[in-house]
Amino acid sequence: MANPNVEILCVGNELLIGKTLNTNAHWLAKRVTSLGLNVKRVTEVGDNLDDISSAVKEAVQRKPCFVIITGGLGPTFDDMTLEGVAKGLGRMLEDNKEALDMVKKKYKQYIDEGRIEKFEMTPHRAKMARLPKDATALVNPVGTAPGVLVEEGEVKLIMLPGVPSEMMAIFDGSVEPLLKQVSGDMMFFEASLDVREMPESQLAPMIDEVMRDNPYVYIKSHPQASEKVPHLEIHLSTTSDDPKAARQRIGRVVIQISEMIQEKGGKVKPVAS
Amino acid sequence: MANPNVEILCVGNELLIGKTLNTNAHWLAKRVTSLGLNVKRVTEVGDNLDDISSAVKEAVQRKPCFVIITGGLGPTFDDMTLEGVAKGLGRMLEDNKEALDMVKKKYKQYIDEGRIEKFEMTPHRAKMARLPKDATALVNPVGTAPGVLVEEGEVKLIMLPGVPSEMMAIFDGSVEPLLKQVSGDMMFFEASLDVREMPESQLAPMIDEVMRDNPYVYIKSHPQASEKVPHLEIHLSTTSDDPKAARQRIGRVVIQISEMIQEKGGKVKPVAS
Repeated sequence: MANPNVEILCVGNELLIGKTLNTNAHWLAKRVTSLGLNVKRVTEVGDNLDDISSAVKEAVQRKPCFVIITGGLGPTFDDMTLEGVAKGLGRMLEDNKEALDMVKKKYKQYIDEGRIEKFEMTPHRAKMARLPKDATALVNPVGTAPGVLVEEGEVKLIMLPGVPSEMMAIFDGSVEPLLKQVSGDMMFFEASLDVREMPESQLAPMIDEVMRDNPYVYIKSHPQASEKVPHLEIHLSTTSDDPKAARQRIGRVVIQISEMIQEKGGKVKPVAS
Repeated sequence: MANPNVEILCVGNELLIGKTLNTNAHWLAKRVTSLGLNVKRVTEVGDNLDDISSAVKEAVQRKPCFVIITGGLGPTFDDMTLEGVAKGLGRMLEDNKEALDMVKKKYKQYIDEGRIEKFEMTPHRAKMARLPKDATALVNPVGTAPGVLVEEGEVKLIMLPGVPSEMMAIFDGSVEPLLKQVSGDMMFFEASLDVREMPESQLAPMIDEVMRDNPYVYIKSHPQASEKVPHLEIHLSTTSDDPKAARQRIGRVVIQISEMIQEKGGKVKPVAS
């Protein structure tokens, strides 16, 4: 199975008003890619029930293996990802015993640590454990709101908090193993070349030719706009379950394109990764 | 007209493999919001014709005022935003005289500056001027590929290069005036409070109450996870064509919520913007 698709859906007005740079999507995309899976789409919507449920419904219809959703799992009124996912899937929300236990345990730990004085299961706290029907709670080693896994046919939806340290901790502990079950030994391999004194429009036909010769390596040129003289990065990537073959593939392309560039008077050198 | 919607669509595999952090979407979201418009959704897709055309079609169906698209306007084979937009709108691509003149002029400038030796209109260069039917080219003061404006019914689609300096320059010169025609005197106002010694779940019911009393101010709490003691930012925002009224609205909320937090033993102070 080659390159099963993953979608990332990030929920939060702070993204749409340009208050917060979406480092979560960037981090997740990098991690998912490095595991040999293919991030097919990233979507950002605000804290709005209809926008979340529509985005969830649309993502599920495209049948990726995973939809990883971040943000909106907390206790405030505008944390509505659980409700949005439930609505998008046509499910009810229900108190999830496992999640409730996780929330209680976390607050007890806060009392032990002297961070809060007493614990009461308020509606706002209980909300973090009202999950879409038949969901599984995922341990949050850092914060209060559990992560959530819901399966809809072949699509696994995974909900993670928007706070980066919590999102990363749940990903490492509970999500990566699920992704690895699908990707098996697939891995992502990449290399970069730094190219000077050759405009992108002159490089373009060379890339076309090398891509035709090497169908398994994806080649993309990135103009480095900060310089007055032409300066580009060429990024090469491939996905394979055979590290040796992957490195050979990339190595062949590095040699072929470097020779072509030098022949036409351009300067090229590898970029240390 | 209150809060007309804008969608942002970013095209590029480098986003989906986690190579590039999407600072373009962040910059655009901030600028669009500050002009009093409402960014409703951000989407990232790869350099894939079907993915681009589907995303364009879906965005147009949601009828925002503007769809701002970044990336994929350059000369290489994987720059396929123009083709993707044309496909999504069911239009042909055609040589755009205006755009061709812009491309030629830019290469002549490069010759004058000694950056290239001679100019030839290769297919790869001409591609940057093959626009969807009835498009308008937008001057790129920085790089080679012109920006593009296409109107589809009430929806204006604007295509900008992915190189940040080019994207920003075309936005400043050609796009901001178009957005201002729609937003008029609307502006975005915001303030932030730094809250300590109060967990988010205790703050949540207070925010609910203040939001009920102040329907025009949007309030959102952002946990600052780096600290062991509870530490949150409360972000307040409103959109209005009356700066004085907007500041008063925000001021009322700052006072009300600060008093409630202090009454319950929390510490609160304004964050300098």
